[in-house]
Amino acid sequence: MEQEDIWDVAHLAHVELLTPKLEESTRFFTDILGMSITEIKDGSIYLRAYDDYEHHSLQLTAHRHAGMGHFAWRARSEQALQRRVNAIAASGYGIGWKENNTGHGRSYQYFSPDGHKMEIYFQSVKYKSGPCDTSALKNTASRFPGRGVNVRRIDHLNLFSNNVRAFRDFQLTNVGGVLTETIVDNMDDLNPKAVWFMVNSKSYDLAVTEDHLGLGGRFHHVTYVCNSREEVLIAADIFLENGIQIETGPHKHSIQQTFFLYVYEPGGNRIEVANATARLIVDPDYKTIFWTQEERKKGQAWGLATIPAFHTRGTPMPEDL
Amino acid sequence: MEQEDIWDVAHLAHVELLTPKLEESTRFFTDILGMSITEIKDGSIYLRAYDDYEHHSLQLTAHRHAGMGHFAWRARSEQALQRRVNAIAASGYGIGWKENNTGHGRSYQYFSPDGHKMEIYFQSVKYKSGPCDTSALKNTASRFPGRGVNVRRIDHLNLFSNNVRAFRDFQLTNVGGVLTETIVDNMDDLNPKAVWFMVNSKSYDLAVTEDHLGLGGRFHHVTYVCNSREEVLIAADIFLENGIQIETGPHKHSIQQTFFLYVYEPGGNRIEVANATARLIVDPDYKTIFWTQEERKKGQAWGLATIPAFHTRGTPMPEDL
Amino acid sequence: MEQEDIWDVAHLAHVELLTPKLEESTRFFTDILGMSITEIKDGSIYLRAYDDYEHHSLQLTAHRHAGMGHFAWRARSEQALQRRVNAIAASGYGIGWKENNTGHGRSYQYFSPDGHKMEIYFQSVKYKSGPCDTSALKNTASRFPGRGVNVRRIDHLNLFSNNVRAFRDFQLTNVGGVLTETIVDNMDDLNPKAVWFMVNSKSYDLAVTEDHLGLGGRFHHVTYVCNSREEVLIAADIFLENGIQIETGPHKHSIQQTFFLYVYEPGGNRIEVANATARLIVDPDYKTIFWTQEERKKGQAWGLATIPAFHTRGTPMPEDL
Amino acid sequence: MEQEDIWDVAHLAHVELLTPKLEESTRFFTDILGMSITEIKDGSIYLRAYDDYEHHSLQLTAHRHAGMGHFAWRARSEQALQRRVNAIAASGYGIGWKENNTGHGRSYQYFSPDGHKMEIYFQSVKYKSGPCDTSALKNTASRFPGRGVNVRRIDHLNLFSNNVRAFRDFQLTNVGGVLTETIVDNMDDLNPKAVWFMVNSKSYDLAVTEDHLGLGGRFHHVTYVCNSREEVLIAADIFLENGIQIETGPHKHSIQQTFFLYVYEPGGNRIEVANATARLIVDPDYKTIFWTQEERKKGQAWGLATIPAFHTRGTPMPEDL
Repeated sequence: MEQEDIWDVAHLAHVELLTPKLEESTRFFTDILGMSITEIKDGSIYLRAYDDYEHHSLQLTAHRHAGMGHFAWRARSEQALQRRVNAIAASGYGIGWKENNTGHGRSYQYFSPDGHKMEIYFQSVKYKSGPCDTSALKNTASRFPGRGVNVRRIDHLNLFSNNVRAFRDFQLTNVGGVLTETIVDNMDDLNPKAVWFMVNSKSYDLAVTEDHLGLGGRFHHVTYVCNSREEVLIAADIFLENGIQIETGPHKHSIQQTFFLYVYEPGGNRIEVANATARLIVDPDYKTIFWTQEERKKGQAWGLATIPAFHTRGTPMPEDL
Repeated sequence: MEQEDIWDVAHLAHVELLTPKLEESTRFFTDILGMSITEIKDGSIYLRAYDDYEHHSLQLTAHRHAGMGHFAWRARSEQALQRRVNAIAASGYGIGWKENNTGHGRSYQYFSPDGHKMEIYFQSVKYKSGPCDTSALKNTASRFPGRGVNVRRIDHLNLFSNNVRAFRDFQLTNVGGVLTETIVDNMDDLNPKAVWFMVNSKSYDLAVTEDHLGLGGRFHHVTYVCNSREEVLIAADIFLENGIQIETGPHKHSIQQTFFLYVYEPGGNRIEVANATARLIVDPDYKTIFWTQEERKKGQAWGLATIPAFHTRGTPMPEDL
Repeated sequence: MEQEDIWDVAHLAHVELLTPKLEESTRFFTDILGMSITEIKDGSIYLRAYDDYEHHSLQLTAHRHAGMGHFAWRARSEQALQRRVNAIAASGYGIGWKENNTGHGRSYQYFSPDGHKMEIYFQSVKYKSGPCDTSALKNTASRFPGRGVNVRRIDHLNLFSNNVRAFRDFQLTNVGGVLTETIVDNMDDLNPKAVWFMVNSKSYDLAVTEDHLGLGGRFHHVTYVCNSREEVLIAADIFLENGIQIETGPHKHSIQQTFFLYVYEPGGNRIEVANATARLIVDPDYKTIFWTQEERKKGQAWGLATIPAFHTRGTPMPEDL
Repeated sequence: MEQEDIWDVAHLAHVELLTPKLEESTRFFTDILGMSITEIKDGSIYLRAYDDYEHHSLQLTAHRHAGMGHFAWRARSEQALQRRVNAIAASGYGIGWKENNTGHGRSYQYFSPDGHKMEIYFQSVKYKSGPCDTSALKNTASRFPGRGVNVRRIDHLNLFSNNVRAFRDFQLTNVGGVLTETIVDNMDDLNPKAVWFMVNSKSYDLAVTEDHLGLGGRFHHVTYVCNSREEVLIAADIFLENGIQIETGPHKHSIQQTFFLYVYEPGGNRIEVANATARLIVDPDYKTIFWTQEERKKGQAWGLATIPAFHTRGTPMPEDL
């Protein structure tokens, strides 16, 4: 009988983005993406999409350059949290417990093998809508905004790494989840170039891809989802009308099948708007899908070439390091 | 510290529908819904939607009248299966192990408090597509059919019960999952009239609603999903063009927010075609949402009245019992 | 050789709605529907949707009760205008020329047989977008708003009449266009209960339906279109979230096939939001489609019953007359 | 007073495509696009989309190489036809009347300045659906197929020309319509590189673009429309699953704003599947929109680069001439 998977992490909880243009970045997420501010505190602005159930899914922090401050997982329970902390601490990558967090209870902080800062927690401050933003439907965290792109919830995070194999092994051993897809050099030598981790029924909450510049600990993008592919197309028009250049897309990813587009928020961080249609992975013994470099040359699902900047452009930019 | 939730069931696996018109029912699921036949064996026809990863999600069995033969859960692991079997056996509702199944390994059979027949298993026969139906995308179970409604996967099952409270307690205690939403008489007396159970990140895989005729063990509907709400609208046109009367919808449910329509397959069983947009529930300590009978009088999300037949029409029909 | 159709009218140009709640009505059209104010003048507010090419498609005028002040056709040319004026004047329904209009040149005013006030003109004041609302695409009249329902353009007008036959004959003889569809008592006695007039390639710009209250000159609804059916569904959510009750829909009309929903603006006038998919009528000798009262009993395309208020509720309301 | 526009042509009626693979081309249009065969006669196969109201909108003719046999306009009336024939005959480009046509009455044949063969007619054979393909909705020409891409109707034709200016002048003078958009070298020297002609309320029925190979009389593409942009995305998946390479798209054109994708049918002719959302042009004195070569360098609406093959690849291919 095989050992059971580690299934202790519930979902990607939030990402802290650093921005040299705090005000403009905030306007991008509120006016253009349709998100809302929950709290402003200690130089950070905390935001959420209309159906994010927690205090925030995005923290914007003023900084000299763009990049990621940290990101957080929410554990499934106190017991699950303790199991993960034990494992992470034993791995040598642990930093320690942090109390007095904004928007959630104590968290355990740690580094990725690359040096990205992360945390995991269970006790959450759930968002309480007020008279102006309570939804007519009790099962929605807050009112559908009817503003800009109307993103619904945070979906996933993509990080650059200078050692994808180490990141993958650290994640599966200590944090858990399933490796749903991976790009490898070839099928003989399975050296990983990119990995996608699933922690619930969504095909991934975290992706890690090789940084062709070989820099450590960089951020690739964070993704918010719309309710339909049609709304991703409408988002494209909204970006066009607001002078925000679309880096690539709308198109459909071969890997994970998501319908996507990428833009840069004013601070310089890459943001994806996406919709995965009705796809879920519910198979509890899902077998990892391998893509070779040869197969990747076909481009995205409908033939769009993957842009070279996808392998090199991340934040911080080289000039900021 | 609260006890951890039981999280041993991966998903609704398949439903066996009884039909007095086997050939016409089969044509409905293949030609109209766009599903495919995997196997024909012992008087049953086994079908799946294009992205159902197992051997089948639907078994059609010739019978004197409509109704449900049984339905199945897939457990998350062998260990999870054993834990559930232990609990169910101890509950007194167990039937016993069944070997030699078509499309999956040995299963443990049991009854609901109402008398519905169920089973749970872990070992699955995954679908292997062939030269004619392999998808261009490795991460899709088989080729997008481009035929009829193009349903993607089985989504959930809805059963009638003459004792919703007993069903709810049995399910949460022995099978597990989360009660995401419930209709109650009123907030003082929380007598349940309908319950929705989540076992993964989809807001429910099983719903149980009160049978106003007070009959036991009846079937309400099974649901297949399309990739977008637009495709539910296209489905409505396809049903219209094929002389299949739409019972109600397309419209949006208040409860669970799904965009839906209902029809009857030729054998007499109710079938739902739906899309949930980008909604998922990833909160590991989600609090059950209560709807009172008073609130339900508002109808569905955009005002459509819930049809009376929803409380009385199920299969088998009274005349068949 | 048959006589050529009269093809002198280009499109429905604008509607003047009377409202007892000018400020709230204005907020409805700007904040909820996503329209913009072009001008405020002499107690009227002039509005347009983002791709309406003229100065306005809607004029809101403060009044003791709801209803329609007048509506306007734009002629295809000065010559076409003169031909129509000659015919209308000869019919005895003409009022006369009106100079000094806001948003267009001189117009010829006239009454319908029912007493609705109408006008026809050719010289138009086209909308000039400014630095804040110029679209990134030169071929769009102004920027896509990304606000509320994002209606694109005025589509059609529906009037109540106490003499549909007289209205129909007046329209076809003097104004022109094609009768694309009509509801009749039965196929023996073609007494018209409702008529739809096409003046370009859109299946209708004006509909006239029998007022079961037998009142004269009332308004039924005006329709603005979204770019997709998905956006009509999003509109439904926006209305729900803003406490605006949806009278009926979203659903698909059998007649003209439009995907629709109806609400009331705060002043009390019925407003439709719709999308016709890719349907156009380009056949120059299109044969009128007849629907009998018997056929109409089937309800709308997918089975929704036509609501009784559709035959009686119009503005002004009886108590206002 | 300006002269009235010539408004005598109702719409693009049909296109005859030449194909060296008649059987495979036919399968592409029926199985993949969802069109139907009306008639097979004299080596040609006549097809239509489900809401094309005439006998056919596409004629496939076996030939040594790909290309266009001819295309046809339908006039608004017998009188309109006669006016156009008089003008064309006087231009010197006329060929003469052709009787005994399949699917329509006598037509007047003529050449474009480039040598493309064209015809214009009024008497049409309208499609009569039978027991198997009559739509449930009387106002639809035939049943929604629920097969493949489900294209609704022919939309427009795009031709290559070695003298765009001559084609433009011939068209506006003799056939009529409005030049809605044009690409010019620059705003000083308005030398046209591409022209779009509108003949009804759809923004164009014919486009003519410069052939960078300088060959005469070649075909660029013909376009069929789907009911929504979502269905263009579904079409992309259907092409992917059927091994039909997508040349470019799905994306949104800056010019005319259509959401598009391009493929090649097995015979080698380029085919577009598109949706224009709710855009129509109803302004009777619409002013031509000019795009300079500089502006075109920005690519399509959301940034996709226009592919070089768009300026050179047409049928027949150079090796076939």
